[in-house]
Amino acid sequence: MSSMWGKNIKISIFGESHGKAVGVTIDGLPSGLLLDMDKIDALMKERAPGRTPWSTPRKEDDNVDIISGVNNGYTTGTPLTGLIYSTNTKSKDYKKTQHIIRPSHADYTGNIRYKGHNIISGGGHFSGRLTAPLVFAGAIAMQILEKKDISINARIYSIGEIDDNSINYCKDFIPDMIVDNNFPTVSNDTKDKMIDYILKCKEEKDSVGGVIEVVANSMPSGIGSPIFDNLESNIASMLFAVPAVKGVEFGAGFDIAKQKASDANDEFDVADDKIVTITNNNGGILGGISNGMPLVVRCAIKPTPSIAKKQNSVDVNNMEKVELEIKGRHDPCIVPRAIPVAKAAVAIAILDTYLSQLEI
Amino acid sequence: MSSMWGKNIKISIFGESHGKAVGVTIDGLPSGLLLDMDKIDALMKERAPGRTPWSTPRKEDDNVDIISGVNNGYTTGTPLTGLIYSTNTKSKDYKKTQHIIRPSHADYTGNIRYKGHNIISGGGHFSGRLTAPLVFAGAIAMQILEKKDISINARIYSIGEIDDNSINYCKDFIPDMIVDNNFPTVSNDTKDKMIDYILKCKEEKDSVGGVIEVVANSMPSGIGSPIFDNLESNIASMLFAVPAVKGVEFGAGFDIAKQKASDANDEFDVADDKIVTITNNNGGILGGISNGMPLVVRCAIKPTPSIAKKQNSVDVNNMEKVELEIKGRHDPCIVPRAIPVAKAAVAIAILDTYLSQLEI
Amino acid sequence: MSSMWGKNIKISIFGESHGKAVGVTIDGLPSGLLLDMDKIDALMKERAPGRTPWSTPRKEDDNVDIISGVNNGYTTGTPLTGLIYSTNTKSKDYKKTQHIIRPSHADYTGNIRYKGHNIISGGGHFSGRLTAPLVFAGAIAMQILEKKDISINARIYSIGEIDDNSINYCKDFIPDMIVDNNFPTVSNDTKDKMIDYILKCKEEKDSVGGVIEVVANSMPSGIGSPIFDNLESNIASMLFAVPAVKGVEFGAGFDIAKQKASDANDEFDVADDKIVTITNNNGGILGGISNGMPLVVRCAIKPTPSIAKKQNSVDVNNMEKVELEIKGRHDPCIVPRAIPVAKAAVAIAILDTYLSQLEI
Amino acid sequence: MSSMWGKNIKISIFGESHGKAVGVTIDGLPSGLLLDMDKIDALMKERAPGRTPWSTPRKEDDNVDIISGVNNGYTTGTPLTGLIYSTNTKSKDYKKTQHIIRPSHADYTGNIRYKGHNIISGGGHFSGRLTAPLVFAGAIAMQILEKKDISINARIYSIGEIDDNSINYCKDFIPDMIVDNNFPTVSNDTKDKMIDYILKCKEEKDSVGGVIEVVANSMPSGIGSPIFDNLESNIASMLFAVPAVKGVEFGAGFDIAKQKASDANDEFDVADDKIVTITNNNGGILGGISNGMPLVVRCAIKPTPSIAKKQNSVDVNNMEKVELEIKGRHDPCIVPRAIPVAKAAVAIAILDTYLSQLEI
Repeated sequence: MSSMWGKNIKISIFGESHGKAVGVTIDGLPSGLLLDMDKIDALMKERAPGRTPWSTPRKEDDNVDIISGVNNGYTTGTPLTGLIYSTNTKSKDYKKTQHIIRPSHADYTGNIRYKGHNIISGGGHFSGRLTAPLVFAGAIAMQILEKKDISINARIYSIGEIDDNSINYCKDFIPDMIVDNNFPTVSNDTKDKMIDYILKCKEEKDSVGGVIEVVANSMPSGIGSPIFDNLESNIASMLFAVPAVKGVEFGAGFDIAKQKASDANDEFDVADDKIVTITNNNGGILGGISNGMPLVVRCAIKPTPSIAKKQNSVDVNNMEKVELEIKGRHDPCIVPRAIPVAKAAVAIAILDTYLSQLEI
Repeated sequence: MSSMWGKNIKISIFGESHGKAVGVTIDGLPSGLLLDMDKIDALMKERAPGRTPWSTPRKEDDNVDIISGVNNGYTTGTPLTGLIYSTNTKSKDYKKTQHIIRPSHADYTGNIRYKGHNIISGGGHFSGRLTAPLVFAGAIAMQILEKKDISINARIYSIGEIDDNSINYCKDFIPDMIVDNNFPTVSNDTKDKMIDYILKCKEEKDSVGGVIEVVANSMPSGIGSPIFDNLESNIASMLFAVPAVKGVEFGAGFDIAKQKASDANDEFDVADDKIVTITNNNGGILGGISNGMPLVVRCAIKPTPSIAKKQNSVDVNNMEKVELEIKGRHDPCIVPRAIPVAKAAVAIAILDTYLSQLEI
Repeated sequence: MSSMWGKNIKISIFGESHGKAVGVTIDGLPSGLLLDMDKIDALMKERAPGRTPWSTPRKEDDNVDIISGVNNGYTTGTPLTGLIYSTNTKSKDYKKTQHIIRPSHADYTGNIRYKGHNIISGGGHFSGRLTAPLVFAGAIAMQILEKKDISINARIYSIGEIDDNSINYCKDFIPDMIVDNNFPTVSNDTKDKMIDYILKCKEEKDSVGGVIEVVANSMPSGIGSPIFDNLESNIASMLFAVPAVKGVEFGAGFDIAKQKASDANDEFDVADDKIVTITNNNGGILGGISNGMPLVVRCAIKPTPSIAKKQNSVDVNNMEKVELEIKGRHDPCIVPRAIPVAKAAVAIAILDTYLSQLEI
Repeated sequence: MSSMWGKNIKISIFGESHGKAVGVTIDGLPSGLLLDMDKIDALMKERAPGRTPWSTPRKEDDNVDIISGVNNGYTTGTPLTGLIYSTNTKSKDYKKTQHIIRPSHADYTGNIRYKGHNIISGGGHFSGRLTAPLVFAGAIAMQILEKKDISINARIYSIGEIDDNSINYCKDFIPDMIVDNNFPTVSNDTKDKMIDYILKCKEEKDSVGGVIEVVANSMPSGIGSPIFDNLESNIASMLFAVPAVKGVEFGAGFDIAKQKASDANDEFDVADDKIVTITNNNGGILGGISNGMPLVVRCAIKPTPSIAKKQNSVDVNNMEKVELEIKGRHDPCIVPRAIPVAKAAVAIAILDTYLSQLEI
């Protein structure tokens, strides 16, 4: 499905960046869930632009207007639709470059796919703004998972070549480990270096990428299935739906491919009468199914494509080469704002997988 | 869906390693496709064990018995079911370890998920043997894609710490670049080093992982969609269905996260009146849609979990710690045999995405 | 899926009767379809209340605000969302009966299903008002089908015991056969009798049901599939999604069950070098696939449950028996207003089936 | 999906009438269900031909070979595949008529749909034989529903113009009401008349249709959803997948369309502290959701198209009119053998609906 996803929790995302509103319909919610709007707003705020020097100065409130599916604060169980109205759009910034396809953006492919009928202003349906309704849906998914004690946490794993400190993946990822919620790393030192580097890129009219790590704590064992409906496929399918994600790995990920089994295998042990593993190179997933260890997944985020630096491109109207300097207010690093999106994606995928295997 | 996948080409995989047969039903095939059985057999053979010193000596023919959906060699268009009967199973090798969960295998999680009712012998439905029907389905998908000139190629990108030479991802990946089809690398030198390393691991009763790179040549631009039905989600969802895959990345993948946009962005150019990119860090996909450049995807394969080296584990019957040496005939490196599986997965995902967007 | 439907054209319906808006997201539309808003409005008007003496006097304009998926009047190909805002609601009419479950309504079952959290006012998500977005989606589906010359027509087949004249189902159903578009029957005489009967029921504070017949003209042969993705299953699945539908039949339908094969079988003939059938008892569908004859389907509509006549019911608060007289402005016969809904349902189902079988 | 169905219980049916085997893969079963093979065989036998004077004398054992998904008699929870091998086929009976399309059969439409590549012998994938795997799947679904006390029963409601006695639809349908399980009616008198009529049709080289009524007893209230995932859509979608079904109705069905609401509405009452309805014209379903009353659904079965009587048809090779007398061993009335198929279809649909709404 194009902009619909899921089997039991179904998410339908719609809207264009500069349209009247973007939104989401969530179907399959339980009835009687008291929505904690403060938590939802907090997650929405993590994504909202204009809050820090390392994000775009464009300010958007991203308040969600729930037009269906909630009754006196409780979910009804019928489709919940939330709208986020557009307030602060500057489409004139985009007008000029309409025929000049922006490198690493979807201008060119969107144009081919939709035969020139897609909306280009602000990225249209391809815009990162479409992750706002995803975050909203993810915030609700998290509240359902919380009832099972599952919590979804994340940190900046790396910015450019700068890595955050490594942690013990056999233990739950404690939110207290984060030194600054506005820029979540476990090392204060790393944080400062990363921010410095981002601001330097900004100054150079450039941008930089990074890696986000999401950890699901207190995962019950037994969630997932072999072959297609496995946890890894479902989570990856959701994460790759986030613009700018170019890689997804679980546990040791690409590093496990460098190892021998005698190093890579997670040996079993017994602790507190429970089966645990001594290492967690598999990121809490074996055979597509959770094993009760923390679920660890990382996604690679490419540098924000929109930069003010001069780039080569093509004017599709006359097929002539042109030089392009992208004006507008862009994030020198989208990684911090992508964190709530990655958490939302992981939460929705875990929830849907969980629901898919309930038995009468 | 657990062991069913797809929207337009639907794949339903069934069977257990040591059962009577494993198989696949493929629904949504066009009618009147003349199956090239030689090509299908060739791909099946790439996966079959027992052919090289670096794979398990266990011999299986993996012939497919097509019991429906084919009429005089042509697909009917109704469900095509292929069965691969079991011939050479040694379940006694597995019996002994039944209560002792093997590290990095699905014994423990499968047991929890299916409440002890899953079949453990040979891995049951979790077995790598279940990739045989996937390869069969992929071989047919490739024949359909060939009608659109799309070809799916792959090579061993790395084994352990040994990398194959890098190639130009702006050009089609020519099968002629492969120096030895039995162990596909572009460098002969690398090939020898990799094989030596695998055989050394074998001698040490150990195993090693690696990375596979799949390249789809002659991809038309415009295949895929924004948000959920994007090429990356669909391909990743399929690749993570392959046992042992722990990471998937497109184009520069995790490396793009280390770059600045001025390096990472693929600038546009015009060549032969066609829009091309000067680099291909995005792996031929922008906004989830193919851009006409070669589609490049890599997956990380963990070392074969079954090793004869001593490992720590737990006997789930009495929850006591035990030491385990896995007997049996296992691959010291599964990467070469996983290549046709990765190609099959990518072919099926591309085909389904393509079919999802056809218009009246 | 609860309120989402379809494989290639996907429809997601949301909203509650007395909420801010009801709406629909349509995903999988072709790009570049110039929407004929006049035709859409015309179909919406067929469903809108307050236009005739035999419908509720409640007036609603049912204008659709398209908030995404359209660019300069053309579909973009990305999700199209239409909202229909609520204007004229009288929830006080409903307040009183909140604890008293209305016979033949979904009050009781909705309450059980959603544990008391569903919205009862106006029927909530169960309301007939949710058919407005379905009609909007159907109007767009019809415009796509028209490009293939397929047109969807309908008439009132019966009201209570009064049947409209029978027609020749081997010929296309010509809109000119309808004597009055506001109350579509082929017989003027029948029309008068039906309207008289409805108004008499209204006077008696009662309501009456009827049967709608939908005919798809110029159906190409070969649309549909055996087993599950057949035209009949897909159309029936959609029609039963319309509130008040309690039966669906194709061609001679339940009457064919009374016949012998020698009468029921549609013998083949050749006309204008084309294969046709001499009768059309199968309603244009054989083996789940269209045969090129007019597609004929009928659905039974139960009498509007809301009547002012005294009825027995139960107060669920104290489980005591009560008598109930339903106030408010209700349709003495919903059949005429259900016609555009039935046409929309059939159009969407045919379109999705058609799209499901396109081949590369 | 063509020959795959379902969201949580997924059914994939494959095979052709005269192929090596027909079969089904069932995915999403709970693990640890002890299959009662006797009950499964009993239902299979109800469908098997060759047992009575009113069915085809063709004998088939229809034993199911379960090749995956069962461990020591218990379901594993992974895909269960059952094969039914072909034993007694006489394709020569069919050879002669290959170019002459049989009236009311899928020969013509199948030929168009699959461009002449479908298998015609024995009906290929369109054959009634494909209902054997459906019955097998349904038998398992019934065993799961039984754990919730839901039982699925059926009777012959009518044969030609002969109706069975009417029953009280407010009470559970007791199997004891059936006077003869080989020909299930509630009236012995009716049974004799029906059988006489069928045998007379047989003598006339003709066949006759009828109506089957399925009743689900002890349905819990609250199963189903408004809009698309309602019980009626799901059941109808399954029933129309059964060859020869041309109509489906719930409760009073098409008769409710003749009534006034004051007659049709099912008034509520309290009995044994439970809410019940005084009549059951809605067949146990309100707003798409079960209300706890017996679920009543009927389907119209057309007369077996294959008759020995002379019919007009067309030779598609030369487009000339021909006369056709169909030889072979056909059922003069398929209704009795369709009963287990209808029960299976209803059971699978109820189970899938039930599973779709489970909550964490």
